[in-house]
Parts: sequence; C-alpha cells; structure tokens
Amino acid sequence: MDYAGFKVGSDSDLDTFARRIKEHGIEVGEIGAGEQPGLGRRLSFIVPTGHRIELFSEMALSDHGPMTRNPEIWREEPHGMRVTRFDHCNLHGPNIDQVVEFFTEVLDFSLTEAAETPEGIAAAFLSCSNKAHDVAFIRRAEPAKFHHVAFSLDSWHEVGQAADIIARYDIPLDIGPTRHGITRGQTIYFFDPSGNRNEVFAGGFIYYPDNPKRVWSMDQIGKAIFYYQRELNQRFMSVVT
Amino acid sequence: MDYAGFKVGSDSDLDTFARRIKEHGIEVGEIGAGEQPGLGRRLSFIVPTGHRIELFSEMALSDHGPMTRNPEIWREEPHGMRVTRFDHCNLHGPNIDQVVEFFTEVLDFSLTEAAETPEGIAAAFLSCSNKAHDVAFIRRAEPAKFHHVAFSLDSWHEVGQAADIIARYDIPLDIGPTRHGITRGQTIYFFDPSGNRNEVFAGGFIYYPDNPKRVWSMDQIGKAIFYYQRELNQRFMSVVT
Amino acid sequence: MDYAGFKVGSDSDLDTFARRIKEHGIEVGEIGAGEQPGLGRRLSFIVPTGHRIELFSEMALSDHGPMTRNPEIWREEPHGMRVTRFDHCNLHGPNIDQVVEFFTEVLDFSLTEAAETPEGIAAAFLSCSNKAHDVAFIRRAEPAKFHHVAFSLDSWHEVGQAADIIARYDIPLDIGPTRHGITRGQTIYFFDPSGNRNEVFAGGFIYYPDNPKRVWSMDQIGKAIFYYQRELNQRFMSVVT
Amino acid sequence: MDYAGFKVGSDSDLDTFARRIKEHGIEVGEIGAGEQPGLGRRLSFIVPTGHRIELFSEMALSDHGPMTRNPEIWREEPHGMRVTRFDHCNLHGPNIDQVVEFFTEVLDFSLTEAAETPEGIAAAFLSCSNKAHDVAFIRRAEPAKFHHVAFSLDSWHEVGQAADIIARYDIPLDIGPTRHGITRGQTIYFFDPSGNRNEVFAGGFIYYPDNPKRVWSMDQIGKAIFYYQRELNQRFMSVVT
Repeated sequence: MDYAGFKVGSDSDLDTFARRIKEHGIEVGEIGAGEQPGLGRRLSFIVPTGHRIELFSEMALSDHGPMTRNPEIWREEPHGMRVTRFDHCNLHGPNIDQVVEFFTEVLDFSLTEAAETPEGIAAAFLSCSNKAHDVAFIRRAEPAKFHHVAFSLDSWHEVGQAADIIARYDIPLDIGPTRHGITRGQTIYFFDPSGNRNEVFAGGFIYYPDNPKRVWSMDQIGKAIFYYQRELNQRFMSVVT
Repeated sequence: MDYAGFKVGSDSDLDTFARRIKEHGIEVGEIGAGEQPGLGRRLSFIVPTGHRIELFSEMALSDHGPMTRNPEIWREEPHGMRVTRFDHCNLHGPNIDQVVEFFTEVLDFSLTEAAETPEGIAAAFLSCSNKAHDVAFIRRAEPAKFHHVAFSLDSWHEVGQAADIIARYDIPLDIGPTRHGITRGQTIYFFDPSGNRNEVFAGGFIYYPDNPKRVWSMDQIGKAIFYYQRELNQRFMSVVT
Repeated sequence: MDYAGFKVGSDSDLDTFARRIKEHGIEVGEIGAGEQPGLGRRLSFIVPTGHRIELFSEMALSDHGPMTRNPEIWREEPHGMRVTRFDHCNLHGPNIDQVVEFFTEVLDFSLTEAAETPEGIAAAFLSCSNKAHDVAFIRRAEPAKFHHVAFSLDSWHEVGQAADIIARYDIPLDIGPTRHGITRGQTIYFFDPSGNRNEVFAGGFIYYPDNPKRVWSMDQIGKAIFYYQRELNQRFMSVVT
Repeated sequence: MDYAGFKVGSDSDLDTFARRIKEHGIEVGEIGAGEQPGLGRRLSFIVPTGHRIELFSEMALSDHGPMTRNPEIWREEPHGMRVTRFDHCNLHGPNIDQVVEFFTEVLDFSLTEAAETPEGIAAAFLSCSNKAHDVAFIRRAEPAKFHHVAFSLDSWHEVGQAADIIARYDIPLDIGPTRHGITRGQTIYFFDPSGNRNEVFAGGFIYYPDNPKRVWSMDQIGKAIFYYQRELNQRFMSVVT
C-alpha cells in the first residue's frame, strides 16, 4: 500500500493537524496541490505501525457524481456488486497501542471496539464518523502491511448478490458470506486480479461518541472475527506490503 | 410535543452552547440534573418554529443496554418491529429559514437536503451525524406542531415485517411501505394508540459534511416526499400539538 | 386479451382434454402446429367468463434459456426488475362459479382460495401447481375482461428494486409495494406503455393439494386484496378487453 | 433414520402404489391407521439404497395450523428461525440409478438435477412438486444412511437471521450461509443436540415437469454442492444411521 488518505473539513484544519502531529513527535511532509489530479495539498506522515497516512481538504467532485437537484435514487441502474462507496481499510503492523493513541489524541478518532490482550491492544477499530470503523489496525510484527480494503453495500441481500457474482465469474473467494462479531458487519472477502483482498459488506452498528467501548478477549477472538464460523482460518491471516 | 432533546459531547459543551444560543438572541432556561430520572442538567429554549428544544450531556445507561464485553449480536432475540434506535423527529412551524440558520450556525448541524420555494425553504433536513437527518422542519403557519417520530430498522426486509405486523394487528396505517425521495429512506408510517404518527424506516444515504446540499423544487415535491407514489396525500398533512 | 395458454404434459393429454371439454358442453377448436413460431397444435375454447383459453403440449426452447450442463446461477447478470418467469393472469367476467367448476373438474386445477358471497364466488384463485395460483377469475358483469398479467420475482427485496425502477423512470404506478391477503404475495402493480396493468411479485404461500381451501368474506375484502391498505381503490378496478 | 413418509392424494392411491411397487419387485408392508396418532394406514417398503419409505393418505390437521377463514399472514408473530415447513431429506446409500428408476417410474417423481459419473448417477434430486427436490439420494457404499433434514425459510434474509441465531446460541455450525449450485438454494447447516445435521434454506429454482434435466459433471462437484466455496469439505461428508 502506498498510503491511505483522509479528507479533513477545511484547509485551515490541515494546518492545525500538521501542528498537532509534529507536537506528537511525528515528522510531517507536505505534497503540493495537483500532484494527483483533482487533489489539493496533502500532509503525509508515517504512523507507529509503519503505514503512510495522508490528510487533505480538497478533492474535485466527479462529473458523474450523485444528482443534487431533484435527485433520483440513481442516475443509471446500478449493476455488479452495487457498491455505494469506499468504506475503510484494514492495516497490520506493530505498536497498536501507540497508533490508537495517535489516532484518538491527535486525529480525533474514537476507539469503538478492540480486542485486548495482557500485552495491549491486538486489534483496534477506529471511527471518525457514525460508522463502526473508518480504519482498523491489527497487531503484527512486520510493519506497514495491508490486509484489505472494504466497500459498502446496502444490505445482506447485496452481500448475497456479491457472492453470486464472485462464484459465477470464478473470482477467488477468501471467506463469506458471514458476519463479523466486531462491528457486526455482514461481509464477504475475495481477491482481485492483483492479489489484494477486498471486502464488500453491509450493516454494522451505528456508532455514537458516547457509546461504551466494546472489548473482546482473545479467547473469543474467533467469534470476534467470524461470528458464524467462530474460528480464524490461516488464509485470512495473509497480508501484502 | 413537550420537547425534543439532543445529547452533546460534554458538560462544558452545554456552557458553550448556552452562550452561543443567547448571543443568537434566544433565551435559554436551565433545568437541574435529576428532574427526569437518569438525566443530567438541561438547557431549554424555543427555536423559531415555536418548538422547545433541550440539550443535555449526561444520561444514565440502561441496565439492559447492549453488551460491551465480547458482545453478542443481541442479548435476547429481537421481536416485533425490531427497532434498533430512536432516529429523528419531524416538526412543523413557521420561520424555516430562521430555524435552519439557528441549527446550522449555533448548533453546528448541516442542512443536508431541502425543498425550496421562492419564499424560502419549505422543508429542511438537518444532520449532526452521518445520517441523512437528525431532525426535520417543515413550513406551516401554526407554530410548534408535531408531525412524526421515527425509529430505525435494519433493512427493507424489516420494513416489510413492520407492515405485516401493522396489518396483522389492525394498527392504523398512514402510508407505506414506500420510499422517500428526500433522504431515500425506505419507510412505513402508522398511528399509535395516542393518535401520534410513527415512522419506522431503513436506509437513507450516509451523509458526509462535504456532500453538496441536495435541493428539491416544489414541482417535484410529490416525488421528494413519496418517491413511489409521486404525490402527497391529505392524510399525511395532519399534525398535532 | 386474445387468449391465455396452458402447457399440458403430452400430446395425448390434448386429446384427453379435448374429449373432457366437449363432454362438459364446451366447443373446442384446434389450431395446427406452427401457426405461431415454435408452438405445437393447440386446443382453443371459450370458458364461462368469456375468455379464450388454449392448451398446447409442445413449445420450442429458447436458445438463450437456462444452462443445463453445470448450470451457473445465471448466464449473464440479471438487470432491470430481475423477473424470473411469467406467473399468472387475472381475468374478469361473469359466471365465476361455472368457470371454477370447469377449471377444477375438467382441467384438474384446485381452487386454493376464494372470496365468497351469498350469490356465489366473487374471486377465485386456481392452481395446477404448488403455486398459490396459476390463474385468477374475478366476478364482473362484462365478459372477457383482462385485469393484469403477473411476473415472478425472487424476494421482497426485488419488489423494492422494482419500485425504485418504476419511480426512477416515471412509469405509471398503480399500487404497491404492498402485500395481498389472498395468496400472501408481496407485490407492486404498474401500467406498461400499452396501458395494460402488470404485476411483479414475490412470495405467496406454497400450495399443496391437501391444503384446506382458504375463504374470505366480503366484509374483509379490503384486507384480502391489499393486506396493508385494507381497502380497495377505484383505480385498481379498471380492466381492458 | 427410521423412515421417510410421503403423503399421497387419496386412499385409493395407496392401493395403486402398493400394486405398482410390488410389480417393481419390492415387498410392501402395511401399517394400520392409528399406529401413530393422527396418521392413517401406511405402506412401508425398502428402496434400493436401503432406506425405509412410507406412503400414507390421511393425517389429522393440527389445531394450531394456518387460518382458513379470512386468514391473517400468521396467527402469532413468528420467532426463532421462522421455519415455514418441512421441505426434504437427503439420504445416502448404494444403487442410486436403481432408486432413481424406482422413484421416477413407480412413484411418479421427476429427476430434476443430477451429478453423473461414468459409473452412473452419484447424486439425484427428485421432485413430486414444483420444488427443486422433495428428496435427494447420494451415492455411498453403506446403505440406509441419513445426511440431513431440511426446513424451508422465506428468503436469504431469513438465512442470515438463522445464522445469527446459530452463532448467538453457540449451536454447532456445519457450513453456511452459502448457496448450492444444485437446486440453487441459499442455505445454512447446523447440528442439533442429537447430533443430526439440519438445513434451513430459501430459494431454489421452481421446477416444471417440462424443464430439461440439469446435469453436473464430477469435475464441477465442488461448485455443484457449495456454489460459493467451490469445494467439498470433509465434515459435510459425515452421515448417521
């Protein structure tokens, strides 16, 4: 993975975050507007798990985006997996307690749910919205690893349709349809032609900032990850750089 | 309706909002902690549509709330309409432009979607979250009217189950199952034994603060309200105090 | 409507039915094979409601039909309303008791469900399968009227998608999404560009020949027809020739 | 398994089937009415796979069965897995070609779908209705083995709810939610406290007697059994007596 980017509310927020990140002891680079088409200036920095994270405040809207004047439910009938938007990514690396501290104290995320061990947090689900997570970090010795990217579907029905499409076209399935205990999302995982793991999922709880943190212990980690199967499988442990 | 309350992030936010509301020219009362069981101190004020709104920062958790330690998907199997939470209320009154100004400038809501006329906003959908709306205001000459309260369901499937329950028990149906053009929610309305209109609904778009505002013109108001029927009906216009 | 046709099991069944229909006192015509492309010889006769019904035993398979060798769930991803097959038609005319007698005694259908009045059957739902109905007859003074043709969908989810498509393209809606009390089907009705009423629906009970007949009385006819609305509407009463 | 029973249309059909079964060379026993409460006289015989099959024409209706006079969609709100009826059983044993011959030629079933090998049929799906199967036979050296019993659900949504219930109460999961290539049913399997495998499933194609037989070759048997996983697993091979 090259980097994961988050959009902030305004250009002045970039300055505020740059200051806060530096005060936290992390070096911040800046990439000028236009380095990527349609994208404004970006802050770029390495978080304790070794991943590059970027922040930006301006991105051009697509000409083919949603209607805003008397908006129909869709412009053209959706097809394929009927994905509605990018949702989150899942990243593996060391120093999970530190990355949680950074995301919650510096970037104003909330830790919505975690799997905890006596040695600290093994899996952290972090949200800057009402979603159960906007990014997840999982403990692993090697830094800067990528596990999956996830796209949002409308319902369990669409998860089933995605499964039909995956099977019909002999796309390599990882696991699913199933449900996560963590986040409660209904999900299916598959590998794209580049070998990257993709998730399409629906549901998951709506997070409010006053929700008590949900915590899983390692003896229930199978159910935390795959609520139906209640056990991890080796294939789901693979990551890429 | 006596009042609608919103929970704010912290006790000090109450002080900040009290100051901002007064600076906006609206009188603010305060109700002491414990006046309602489990509820902390509240700010109370009348918004331009004539409705009483309250803010609070502390509310005791139910003993029967969601599990937080190795949380199962539910404690006990859901039954009935399988409502997951209170979602929003819909209020009618005059001065919609002013109430929008108040909610966006003073209470930090966003106007996600609106029906607009040459005389100003006729229907305003306001969010302080990633939901399409947390409260809606509709133009009407009489102040302080209540149209409906809405509860959240998980999917269109549950909307159908709610319809089955409403019919099976001969509960007075208002309209639905249908979909709103505004918010895109899939919905059914019925009257409870007190004569109040209730909505249970699913779906609706996920709102992000950088979304362009969606605007409906009055010639499409039928589709805005009931996307399938494409026309208002007289019964849906009724309100109570 | 020109005619409604039913496929029988074999060519010799045509001879058996021709004899039984004539013994019942109804004249039977025969149309030679090939009069319509791909269609074998047909029996043609007028039932007591005034409708022309035909029987045939041979029809050529489409080159684009379902796969039969290691059959995938679909050849090409379904789109639009995702109709799976023609299901039934609904016909209006006089002499409902007589048409029921004909279909049950001569054509071996079962009367699965009926609305009954002191003057006889007002609405008859007849099945020659495990479906709640393969044809329905409704009492009306004028003979040989056509009310609607119905196509099958997989689930309530698809009924909602059909509603989205009907609304998105401003196709004239008749009623729905709703549920019928009779048959329990989940349904939506719309008018095609020719002005004919079409239904797409899902669900409905599975009929077994030992099921007791379900009977509705006229004081519950609203719920029988539209289980959710619990009342007929005038528009749904229209028919064509 | 003690026996699987099928209900025939009338008492005289029992005599007809008794004659046909004997003519086929299979011995037929008869069990008198009332040996089981509410059950009429039964024919009992052993089919070529070693399983005892029974036929009967009379069974008393439950006092708590479906309503037949102005029938509501349900008497009491369904709960749990919301099973609608018993659907089929899956039996393992030798002589699959012979058992298919017996069910199609003597008992008037249709072979809707099969997995075929050069040595004959390995898996046979037999229907006496519009369902994709009413009984299935799978090739195995040992006679008279029981694989699973299946109950019908309304939709993929209910399959997901069944999965939630199975996980919530730590019921042993076998496999699912998934889909079968054969029959196309959407399914989940679990073990009951007696150790028997149970299936709850939805969907599956509607069978008409003029449908061409669907045939799977053994190189696609993984997809035939589990359309999503595309491979058998050892646990699914277990049977009981």
